[in-house]
Amino acid sequence: MTNRSDIASPTGRSDLLQIYRDGLLGDTLPFWVKHSVDRECGGFMTAMDQDGAIVDTDKGVWQQTRFTWLLGELYNRVAQRSEWLDLAIHGIQFIEQHCFDPTDGRMWFQVTRQGQPIRKRRYSFSESFAAIAYGELALATDNAQYKQLAKELFQNFIDQNNRPTFPAKFTDTRQTRAIGFPMIGIATAQQLRDTIDLDAADDLIDGFIQTIRDYHFKPELRCVMETVGLHGEVIDHFDGRTLNPGHAIEGAWFIMKEGKRRADASLIKLGCQMLDWMWQRGWDEQHGGILYFVDLHGGPVQEYWHDMKFWWPQNETIIATLMAYQLTGDEKYARWHQQIHDWAYSHFPDQDNGEWFGYLHRDGSRSSTLKGNLWKGPFHLPRMQLECWQSLQESDLTTVSRDS
Amino acid sequence: MTNRSDIASPTGRSDLLQIYRDGLLGDTLPFWVKHSVDRECGGFMTAMDQDGAIVDTDKGVWQQTRFTWLLGELYNRVAQRSEWLDLAIHGIQFIEQHCFDPTDGRMWFQVTRQGQPIRKRRYSFSESFAAIAYGELALATDNAQYKQLAKELFQNFIDQNNRPTFPAKFTDTRQTRAIGFPMIGIATAQQLRDTIDLDAADDLIDGFIQTIRDYHFKPELRCVMETVGLHGEVIDHFDGRTLNPGHAIEGAWFIMKEGKRRADASLIKLGCQMLDWMWQRGWDEQHGGILYFVDLHGGPVQEYWHDMKFWWPQNETIIATLMAYQLTGDEKYARWHQQIHDWAYSHFPDQDNGEWFGYLHRDGSRSSTLKGNLWKGPFHLPRMQLECWQSLQESDLTTVSRDS
Repeated sequence: MTNRSDIASPTGRSDLLQIYRDGLLGDTLPFWVKHSVDRECGGFMTAMDQDGAIVDTDKGVWQQTRFTWLLGELYNRVAQRSEWLDLAIHGIQFIEQHCFDPTDGRMWFQVTRQGQPIRKRRYSFSESFAAIAYGELALATDNAQYKQLAKELFQNFIDQNNRPTFPAKFTDTRQTRAIGFPMIGIATAQQLRDTIDLDAADDLIDGFIQTIRDYHFKPELRCVMETVGLHGEVIDHFDGRTLNPGHAIEGAWFIMKEGKRRADASLIKLGCQMLDWMWQRGWDEQHGGILYFVDLHGGPVQEYWHDMKFWWPQNETIIATLMAYQLTGDEKYARWHQQIHDWAYSHFPDQDNGEWFGYLHRDGSRSSTLKGNLWKGPFHLPRMQLECWQSLQESDLTTVSRDS
Repeated sequence: MTNRSDIASPTGRSDLLQIYRDGLLGDTLPFWVKHSVDRECGGFMTAMDQDGAIVDTDKGVWQQTRFTWLLGELYNRVAQRSEWLDLAIHGIQFIEQHCFDPTDGRMWFQVTRQGQPIRKRRYSFSESFAAIAYGELALATDNAQYKQLAKELFQNFIDQNNRPTFPAKFTDTRQTRAIGFPMIGIATAQQLRDTIDLDAADDLIDGFIQTIRDYHFKPELRCVMETVGLHGEVIDHFDGRTLNPGHAIEGAWFIMKEGKRRADASLIKLGCQMLDWMWQRGWDEQHGGILYFVDLHGGPVQEYWHDMKFWWPQNETIIATLMAYQLTGDEKYARWHQQIHDWAYSHFPDQDNGEWFGYLHRDGSRSSTLKGNLWKGPFHLPRMQLECWQSLQESDLTTVSRDS
């Protein structure tokens, strides 16, 4: 077995399934369990160098909630291992005790090792990630309070986006809408439908997808816009022209996944169309990999790190290409999956210490030895490994039952 | 004449003087005058591609004030060309009409082409740059109102730093002080001493230098810290360990310049010591050039673009090494000047369109074709060319008078 991807053959699929499953259970998860669990102060420390040495004891709230979610998801979806549940409870306890601001009920973005607040942000992504973490714990422990909290946090995320209570960074001169809100809305509702049977999930998902279709999905430009005007108008300034292909591709697989569940061909088509456009825009023909930002018209981008290769856009593209191939059988997606899988697996894994590096230059050379920080933690890589493993397993079962 | 720097020989110095003077008057200044002056709506547009094509019509307030300062400085220091004065007045008119928030008197950070506000920032650097622009205009036109505004804006910059009125980005859990405030304080007071005879300038400068000495200058670490705790303590987290060598080196020449003016050997020594430490930390032994951020202990840095080569740290280091050589005669500084000058001039200038590119990868390859944006405009490069030209000219005159 090599790390090369060949999804079109049964052997290739079997190899890939092993790569994803064993990578998750034998590498990624043990790496974080070994290095990030703070037995002394609770929660997780994710700011670490390549060998797992903690380089900053501060705790990112995104990572507290995401690792807790991952552990709960593994417990509920893969195997009821008590170690995973215990660690998820270890995470949720730190979240409960230290990640909420009692003055307004909102969540912090960054706290100290002991849980003192450092920073809150305007956006409420902490709340959305906490919602799915509480959802997993509600399912795993049948705890009604967790279930209620999961619902409330999701509602807070929605309310805070619609009626921000935090001072705005920009004036009202040029109001915008960002794709992050409806995207994360879809993923959160999907999760809470699975874990706490969220009643409104289908309707909410319909609404979020409609928002993307109405405002961000641009057939005339063959593009999914990251940021648009309030009515979906293209804003011809740096911020409006800046595309985030890996992000749009993440949104694409959320929608494909919904199409698969509902057997809704129009949703699958929408997701594949989003992937098609953004692969064309994001894949780096010169060096390989998905670029971080590109300009709508191919011009210069203002963000300094625009052409770097971050780990997570590759993770999201690996999921999306695999899903698109499984849903459509289109050989193009098998080729793309092979391209992105092979490029990512030949550049990101840390051969010495396990897990992946996070930040490469455009040419694939390493920019940083960091294994984690406020933004990189046990989320995109293990979620990719889990999603791909599970969907390959399902398709194998389908193939087996079809053959038998 | 080549673009290679050899400051230790008379011919080398003469060549260098020409490079800086002709670069300023024959390349940098004409580039911005040709491409950035907005004859229709006033002010300057600096977001442009390599050929000067405007890629974003929004106007950065830093660039309005800095270009206005440069034009006034050239008028007052180099030659009383009416074109320069007219353009400086063109700039100040846009600033007066569109760059202040009438509700609180603070300045915006970014406005539209027509001058509608887009964004205000917590920090008041817009005010400090506006102060020196008004100072130049006050001197050039003998306008008492400009003089008064220059004083008030500098005071606003100081007050806003000491008692912020804008919501904080961080909680009070870990209060910090950044070197940017005392550094820009020194440079602003130096400018206003020259243009409006600011009474308090010497005392203010003494205070700002003392702040740097007391809190940021660390002999035991051989380092100038960018960010420290309120009492100068080293903060052992990403933000506290992150060093900005080009920034500290900019501060170093502000202090050397003060030492030169006052013939104060202790200030010259302080500036040279800051340069020595931060050259050692910032010079990239592998690829050349000054790195953007480095970690205090050589560990990983959290900012994604940490190892890129931006134009301005090179500009500031070219000034500082030249000044240190002229003030001390130490051959080490001549060597460093040659290293940084030669590396910068072989990587940054745009051979086709003039001026410099702004953003290179660590290895010196180009990351962006941008010639300007909200942060890059007619400031660091032309200021370097002006400072180095003028100081080489002064030293030539000194040499001539000594020889005669």
